[in-house]
Amino acid sequence: MLFHVRMDVNIPADMPVEVADEIKTREKAYSQALQKSGKWPHIWRLVGEYANYSIFDVESNAELHGILTGLPLFSYMKIEVTPLCRHPSSIRDDES
Amino acid sequence: MLFHVRMDVNIPADMPVEVADEIKTREKAYSQALQKSGKWPHIWRLVGEYANYSIFDVESNAELHGILTGLPLFSYMKIEVTPLCRHPSSIRDDES
Amino acid sequence: MLFHVRMDVNIPADMPVEVADEIKTREKAYSQALQKSGKWPHIWRLVGEYANYSIFDVESNAELHGILTGLPLFSYMKIEVTPLCRHPSSIRDDES
Amino acid sequence: MLFHVRMDVNIPADMPVEVADEIKTREKAYSQALQKSGKWPHIWRLVGEYANYSIFDVESNAELHGILTGLPLFSYMKIEVTPLCRHPSSIRDDES
Amino acid sequence: MLFHVRMDVNIPADMPVEVADEIKTREKAYSQALQKSGKWPHIWRLVGEYANYSIFDVESNAELHGILTGLPLFSYMKIEVTPLCRHPSSIRDDES
Amino acid sequence: MLFHVRMDVNIPADMPVEVADEIKTREKAYSQALQKSGKWPHIWRLVGEYANYSIFDVESNAELHGILTGLPLFSYMKIEVTPLCRHPSSIRDDES
Amino acid sequence: MLFHVRMDVNIPADMPVEVADEIKTREKAYSQALQKSGKWPHIWRLVGEYANYSIFDVESNAELHGILTGLPLFSYMKIEVTPLCRHPSSIRDDES
Amino acid sequence: MLFHVRMDVNIPADMPVEVADEIKTREKAYSQALQKSGKWPHIWRLVGEYANYSIFDVESNAELHGILTGLPLFSYMKIEVTPLCRHPSSIRDDES
Amino acid sequence: MLFHVRMDVNIPADMPVEVADEIKTREKAYSQALQKSGKWPHIWRLVGEYANYSIFDVESNAELHGILTGLPLFSYMKIEVTPLCRHPSSIRDDES
Amino acid sequence: MLFHVRMDVNIPADMPVEVADEIKTREKAYSQALQKSGKWPHIWRLVGEYANYSIFDVESNAELHGILTGLPLFSYMKIEVTPLCRHPSSIRDDES
Repeated sequence: MLFHVRMDVNIPADMPVEVADEIKTREKAYSQALQKSGKWPHIWRLVGEYANYSIFDVESNAELHGILTGLPLFSYMKIEVTPLCRHPSSIRDDES
Repeated sequence: MLFHVRMDVNIPADMPVEVADEIKTREKAYSQALQKSGKWPHIWRLVGEYANYSIFDVESNAELHGILTGLPLFSYMKIEVTPLCRHPSSIRDDES
Repeated sequence: MLFHVRMDVNIPADMPVEVADEIKTREKAYSQALQKSGKWPHIWRLVGEYANYSIFDVESNAELHGILTGLPLFSYMKIEVTPLCRHPSSIRDDES
Repeated sequence: MLFHVRMDVNIPADMPVEVADEIKTREKAYSQALQKSGKWPHIWRLVGEYANYSIFDVESNAELHGILTGLPLFSYMKIEVTPLCRHPSSIRDDES
Repeated sequence: MLFHVRMDVNIPADMPVEVADEIKTREKAYSQALQKSGKWPHIWRLVGEYANYSIFDVESNAELHGILTGLPLFSYMKIEVTPLCRHPSSIRDDES
Repeated sequence: MLFHVRMDVNIPADMPVEVADEIKTREKAYSQALQKSGKWPHIWRLVGEYANYSIFDVESNAELHGILTGLPLFSYMKIEVTPLCRHPSSIRDDES
Repeated sequence: MLFHVRMDVNIPADMPVEVADEIKTREKAYSQALQKSGKWPHIWRLVGEYANYSIFDVESNAELHGILTGLPLFSYMKIEVTPLCRHPSSIRDDES
Repeated sequence: MLFHVRMDVNIPADMPVEVADEIKTREKAYSQALQKSGKWPHIWRLVGEYANYSIFDVESNAELHGILTGLPLFSYMKIEVTPLCRHPSSIRDDES
Repeated sequence: MLFHVRMDVNIPADMPVEVADEIKTREKAYSQALQKSGKWPHIWRLVGEYANYSIFDVESNAELHGILTGLPLFSYMKIEVTPLCRHPSSIRDDES
Repeated sequence: MLFHVRMDVNIPADMPVEVADEIKTREKAYSQALQKSGKWPHIWRLVGEYANYSIFDVESNAELHGILTGLPLFSYMKIEVTPLCRHPSSIRDDES
């Protein structure tokens, strides 16, 4: 089941660089583990913005909520979730 | 080069059903040809809305403009384009 | 799996009353069948507006999309879908 | 009498974790007592957001105001209240 | 129990003047009957706009909904309802 | 001459409680003196919000500006002013 | 007493040119009579828009409402009124 | 050449009163010098807001930019500029 | 003197194709004459939208207003004008 | 390939002047090097705002993203990117 997610990151100006770097390192590892597992099939950067569009492929709303609130940067993000389904013009049989 | 596109379709209430059906048939064929060519790698329906999120993979802004204005439903759509690039946390080497 | 849905109805001023009434009659029957099945556990009217807040309990995004686009009034509605999950302060074990 | 309430929580980044935890513990107890009493029949988490949709069942506007301003997290919330009534398509005799 | 209501009226440009006048005559009578009954204690015109701010004093959400949807101009209005309660700085003992 | 005013109060999170309390005490006294004088005939709390809708009855724009900027909480408020006049459906002869 | 007013004109595409011209002729005469009387001291066109910013100098809210609703183009306008007063940095003794 | 400018002032809550007062004193002198020169023919306070509507009469966009960025309060302002021209219904021969 | 202008074109769905084509032909000729004269140095299409960003180089606000309201498509456009000036980081001596 | 970019700069009020000045000096040098290279053909100041409209001429979305995130002021900017293409009414053969 697919979801479209937009994440806008806003790190406070007064967060020490080391702290920010440590969180970003954990964020990257967390994201890559989920990408490898197939739960997070796409992540794209918006040109010129500290933001991404992502596609998640999960079993349920609850699983998606668990993934998103587990993001190391979660407290510094504005997140917008849109449920997706297969488009009738898609050439594929599944939602991908 | 990837672009994220949101399309919201709004067909006038007084368009005869046959006319609308004919346009939708052409729209589907047009979309599927582009999907098969690799120019339009993803199209998803937003749940509960007559709208889609799509990903386009084109050579230039001009090529994307040509594709979008060529949509049979173009006159009845609100379109919003966002340029994308590879996310630094992506596990892939390319933008996909 | 629960979803929160807001529907705003906007019937064109020039639709003949009989046509509108016929659609509304089908809408009511359609809604009540889904309520009885447990797929549509709640529907509330917003005071002073031709709009409702509803809760749907479905297996997937695709099932919800099928239900919503099947609404007899679908063409005359603005629909906004929000995925829900169990709140950690809820006194219930499930999402309801 | 039912009301639909959206609460968005925004805890200041510089609040010490212990302080935040203590407030959240009180918030949970406060919410659960009201849920058990029947005044707060539903609370759902919005996927990916520190926010909830709730339904309150109270005797009056004043009672609802008292409940909301009594929330331990009240000072850190943006709250939006919408009065509800029975939908004419509901299969129930009351508003629930 | 008091509610603050904003009504914006938008009569279609192609409605014949006699039809509009007949609806407005009924609207005025309907409003004045409710004002006399005490249910609609205040109605004010916004300067330069075809809109009003009103205060309603009703027993329940359902009663207010009945009153508002009974307005002869209801189909041509955008209505926004805000529940009110006594302000702690008010010099009166009741909500008025 | 009547004006409709919405005030949203936003006290900074780091203001010491005693300071806030002292300002609120002055605010209440200031408001009640104006209510008694007839200049501020109505003040209502919006349910669930730290905000009010008020009606002022003043001689001129300048008098209203003087009253509003004299509010002890003025620096912490967002204020929105709408001029009112008698509604043609009102059952009263004056604007009240 | 001064008021700042923004008027945006939107004449329906299907109004016959003669009808529109006749209304505009009356509008101009109406406006110029008020300008000469001193009630409408300023009117400026916004560059590139069918809109104006105006300043009115009237005795009361009611007088302003009467002037605005008397505009021959009133039914085709969106109007936004802001009450003004003398700025403390003004070099003039009055509001002008 | 006339421009309509809206300025909203937002002085940080933690700026010492003496600092704020010193800036405001310079702002007033700066504004009055420009008013006397004819470059800033009008300045009005919006009732209940720390904001003004102003009219500037300058030779060029660049001159206006120089004036606005030279305002002692510039760093604490949100500024919105609208170019104006003579309205065809104006009774004056120039733009004033 | 430079101005940045955004134009969004919205031709009514029921305008006959020949009428629309004739207006567009005149629009193109009008635009190209101004481009050649140097008054309209830049015009760009927004990808996927029936809209353009343009730069105008004119003597005054009034000249710009005359040009814009003279556009054959003016009645079908939403226009937004922003005055520009030389950027202090520009490598050019003039505004271009 | 051209892109239209709006940048709004917002430097925190508590940043020491020397720090801000050093960043601005680097910003100017960075911008001018790109202007000289032809990658950043236009930059204009919006009158009265700490903001610019710029045109970039780059090979790809990725190149633009690299340029924008390399801006010394990037962390203090809100950036909005719009892809452009040649307008059919342009008198030039290329996009410029």
